[in-house]
Amino acid sequence: MATEIQEQPAVWRRLLAAAGEDSDIARAAALVRAYQPRFVLFVARGTSDHAALYAKYVAEIVHGLPCGLVSPSTMTAYGARPDLTGVLMIGISQSGGSPDLVQSLAAAREHGALTVAITNNAGSALASAARAHVDIQAGPELAVAATKSYTAQLLAVHLLLAAVRGEDAGSAAPLPDAAEALVAGDATVAELAQRYRFASRLVTTGRGYSYPTAREGALKLMETCYLSAQAFSGADLLHGPLAMIDPQVPVLAVAAEGVGGAAMSQVFPRLAEQGADVFCIGTPDTVAAADAGVVLPTGVPEQLSPLLEIIPLQQLALHLALARGGNPDAPRGLRKVTETL
Amino acid sequence: MATEIQEQPAVWRRLLAAAGEDSDIARAAALVRAYQPRFVLFVARGTSDHAALYAKYVAEIVHGLPCGLVSPSTMTAYGARPDLTGVLMIGISQSGGSPDLVQSLAAAREHGALTVAITNNAGSALASAARAHVDIQAGPELAVAATKSYTAQLLAVHLLLAAVRGEDAGSAAPLPDAAEALVAGDATVAELAQRYRFASRLVTTGRGYSYPTAREGALKLMETCYLSAQAFSGADLLHGPLAMIDPQVPVLAVAAEGVGGAAMSQVFPRLAEQGADVFCIGTPDTVAAADAGVVLPTGVPEQLSPLLEIIPLQQLALHLALARGGNPDAPRGLRKVTETL
Repeated sequence: MATEIQEQPAVWRRLLAAAGEDSDIARAAALVRAYQPRFVLFVARGTSDHAALYAKYVAEIVHGLPCGLVSPSTMTAYGARPDLTGVLMIGISQSGGSPDLVQSLAAAREHGALTVAITNNAGSALASAARAHVDIQAGPELAVAATKSYTAQLLAVHLLLAAVRGEDAGSAAPLPDAAEALVAGDATVAELAQRYRFASRLVTTGRGYSYPTAREGALKLMETCYLSAQAFSGADLLHGPLAMIDPQVPVLAVAAEGVGGAAMSQVFPRLAEQGADVFCIGTPDTVAAADAGVVLPTGVPEQLSPLLEIIPLQQLALHLALARGGNPDAPRGLRKVTETL
Repeated sequence: MATEIQEQPAVWRRLLAAAGEDSDIARAAALVRAYQPRFVLFVARGTSDHAALYAKYVAEIVHGLPCGLVSPSTMTAYGARPDLTGVLMIGISQSGGSPDLVQSLAAAREHGALTVAITNNAGSALASAARAHVDIQAGPELAVAATKSYTAQLLAVHLLLAAVRGEDAGSAAPLPDAAEALVAGDATVAELAQRYRFASRLVTTGRGYSYPTAREGALKLMETCYLSAQAFSGADLLHGPLAMIDPQVPVLAVAAEGVGGAAMSQVFPRLAEQGADVFCIGTPDTVAAADAGVVLPTGVPEQLSPLLEIIPLQQLALHLALARGGNPDAPRGLRKVTETL
């Protein structure tokens, strides 16, 4: 897991270099442009579902397209066969192997949708089931807790949708260097992790583009540290779950530069009222106001910030797992490829 | 909260009696039929978001319509203005008062969507913002933790979508009597609740139509008992979160008659491998195989089962809160109407 976290800048450089005119990304984007979708559906599970949630925000905000996340069981277990004319369906999976995703994408293609698969395996069943495939080129991922494949999925989503809009990869070019700076901060995060050595539950939160970061960070902590980690959008947190936060339930908040981070200003005072201990991944100001935290590199467009925000949370999950005596590479009860029906 | 849990059969009878030819449900259904939506979007927060999730399953499975749950921030904080021609947008809220929902529904109406609000207040801003309004007629709800308004929302969704299909309320007619049987089991649930007196975190799970039950049950436990309660679809649970389950993390599983309950048979053996303690709300067989549980009334169509499944979880949240010294009517840190921007 430690190696794969460190590999991320190199993985992104490889994907950025490969995203030229004759790439699978360019070909998939050309299909989408020609198709002119009216609605976008995403199908994914686990970590990939958080990349799908990120893609949903980009498609809704930047493309103005209504979107949905498919519950695979409606098409697999219940056999629903909706008319998907005019729908773009994007399936995201590291392995490309889970039967429910393959079946959902195949059924969608049969029922009128343009289908695109984003996977780390061009030879996978999901890649074959889709009309177009985007290879995230993250290389073999051996740790059960996905890290480099997640950020490569985010970057692939960004590059695909940017290409649909006719934009090049330019805005993402500074990301690998910014990530190097965060990777280099590993020892600092390892120290900060000691603060949560004896926590049994915690909450992660963020809004807008950073909400997928909160979700993915929580999943890493559950997988590797066996903590109960619950993610909420900053707004949903106020609609009930706030009640269970007290000084014994640490809150990991993401508040990057931009609209989503600014919207968190409604949340921080309510957390303070509950006496919450807050770890912040964000701007110098929000980190300074928190109990602990990591400052993000500045000058990154909000839409690309999720690629960076997750890195300190991956490091936190790794070091906290080690501190608690766990094995982050092989968590109990899990397999690398999960096959659900 | 105790009174409002008990009121549910009466609330449902009132709504069923009011759902005739000249009702707001019939008028909204006629608008939807004439509009012939190609996609359905839902916008809601908190408990109402779980009613929206239920509605999404019904619309996807029974109507074969692609659906999405809107992240309100895309339209409010980020100002996205998608072209929503052909889209039905349904807003669900007990109070009808949260500004982000009102703004989302108003913007959607302006941009081509047919908008329907489902609230407990015909005079609310959300009711006015929508083209059509369905009043769930649950009466004033005073406890902060929503109970009767949730099941009235589920019933309103069912009746509205049944009316769109040209079906009457007949299939729902046996529900109030079935609910009486569950309400009468309150003392048994109060005893079972003692088992979780000292738990600090737990997991809820279900698949298909029962997944919204797992989500809503977890929210009740968070709100009233200040537990970390995490809900997962049975499939998503296997994609990572399973690792954090051990004999100290009770699992509340919903496995009713039907496709969703049958799909849980993939999950129970994996929970057993983790040594999980399982409380089951389901069929006699699944409850008998669990460590504790509540048997659901038989003969209820799977699609309507969520109205019943949630009742034992509401009772569990109430009695566990009392056992732990909490006040389920007024949880710390919460207000009845949450206004998020």
